[in-house]
Amino acid sequence: MSFSPLIRQLIDALRILPGVGQKTAQRMALQLLERDRSGGLRLAQSLAKAMEGVGYCRQCRTLTEDDLCPQCADPRRDDSLLCVVQSPVDVFAVEQTGFRGRYFVLKGHLSPLDGLGPEAIGIPELLSRVADGAFTEVILATNPTVEGEATAHYIAQMLIPKGLTISRIAHGVPLGGELDLVDGGTLAHALAGRKPISL
Amino acid sequence: MSFSPLIRQLIDALRILPGVGQKTAQRMALQLLERDRSGGLRLAQSLAKAMEGVGYCRQCRTLTEDDLCPQCADPRRDDSLLCVVQSPVDVFAVEQTGFRGRYFVLKGHLSPLDGLGPEAIGIPELLSRVADGAFTEVILATNPTVEGEATAHYIAQMLIPKGLTISRIAHGVPLGGELDLVDGGTLAHALAGRKPISL
Repeated sequence: MSFSPLIRQLIDALRILPGVGQKTAQRMALQLLERDRSGGLRLAQSLAKAMEGVGYCRQCRTLTEDDLCPQCADPRRDDSLLCVVQSPVDVFAVEQTGFRGRYFVLKGHLSPLDGLGPEAIGIPELLSRVADGAFTEVILATNPTVEGEATAHYIAQMLIPKGLTISRIAHGVPLGGELDLVDGGTLAHALAGRKPISL
Repeated sequence: MSFSPLIRQLIDALRILPGVGQKTAQRMALQLLERDRSGGLRLAQSLAKAMEGVGYCRQCRTLTEDDLCPQCADPRRDDSLLCVVQSPVDVFAVEQTGFRGRYFVLKGHLSPLDGLGPEAIGIPELLSRVADGAFTEVILATNPTVEGEATAHYIAQMLIPKGLTISRIAHGVPLGGELDLVDGGTLAHALAGRKPISL
C-alpha cells in the first residue's frame, strides 16, 4: 500500500476514462499532483459542469446544454437536407466534411435481440421531425455495420412512402492505403458501385 | 463549430492529461456524457479533493494528504535502510519490489544549467533526515541517466564521510528481451559488473 487514500481514489476514478488502465491512471494522477494542480482543478470544474449541465438538443437530440444545439440554432444551414446518424460523435464527424444541412441523432441502432426496437432508438421522433420539417432528402449515415445497414433499411422503408429522396452514404474503398489490404466485402461494394469516368 | 460550449471546455480541459490529444479527449468527453455521468461526477470530486488536499509527507516528502505518508507512518518497516529516489512515482516503483525500508524523495535531479543546485532538490533536508535517523545504509535509487548518476555521486560524496554504507542500484541488462537489443553502455556496465557463479 504505497499511495495515500486520496491519491488512490483519484487513480481509481481516472480509470473510468476509455483506454486508461492502472499504469496510465497513476501517471495521470501523479503528473497532475506534481505539475499542474490548477489544470487539475479546472478539469474537475469542467467535468462537474458538463456532467450536470449537458442534456440533449430538443430538435436533433445531440448532446448540448442549450435547448437547441449549435447546428439546429444556426439559421444559415440548408433546411432541405437531413442527415441521420447513430450518435452525437457522428455529428462531429459529418460536420468535419463540410456538410451544412440538419441532423437527427438516433440512440444507437436497431437490435431486436437486445430489446432495442424502433421506439428505443427514436424512430417515432425521427418520423415526426421529418413531418415537421421541409426536407427534400434524408441521408442515412448510420454505421457501415450489419446493424447500421439494417437500421438504415428500416428507416428507408418508413420514409420512402412519404415521397422523400432517401439516400445512403456510399460504400467503397477508403482513400489512402492499398487495395490488397481492403477487405473483400468493401471491395465488392466498390466494384458494384463503380462510376464511369468522363474526361 | 459543432460542440456546445460546456462540451468544448470539457474536451479542452481533458487535454491537460498526459498522452491525451484532441481526438482522445473528444472520445473521453462523449463517452462520459453518454454512458457514465455518475462516474464523471465521481472523477470530478476525486480530482478536486486530491488537487486541494494532497500535500507532502513531512518526513520523506512523497505526495500524501496526511502529515506522514503510509510508508513513514508504518512502524514495522526497517529503520536502518533509506532509499533515495527522484520523485513520488519512484516510491511506488521501488515499493513494488518488496523493499520495506524508509524513503526520501528528492525534487528531481541536480541540474546546474537550469539553476537546480543541492538546495533546490532538497539535499540539505536529506542530510538532516540522515542525521536524525538510525540508518546504516543509504541506497541511491536516482534514475540511471547522466543527471541521476551525477546526483547520486554528489549525495555519496556528502554522506560517505558520515560513516554510512552508501550504495547505488545495480546497472546491467534488464530481464527479458534479447542481448543484441541492449544498448552498448548498458552492456558495458553489465560486463564490468559481472558476478562469479557458484554452484
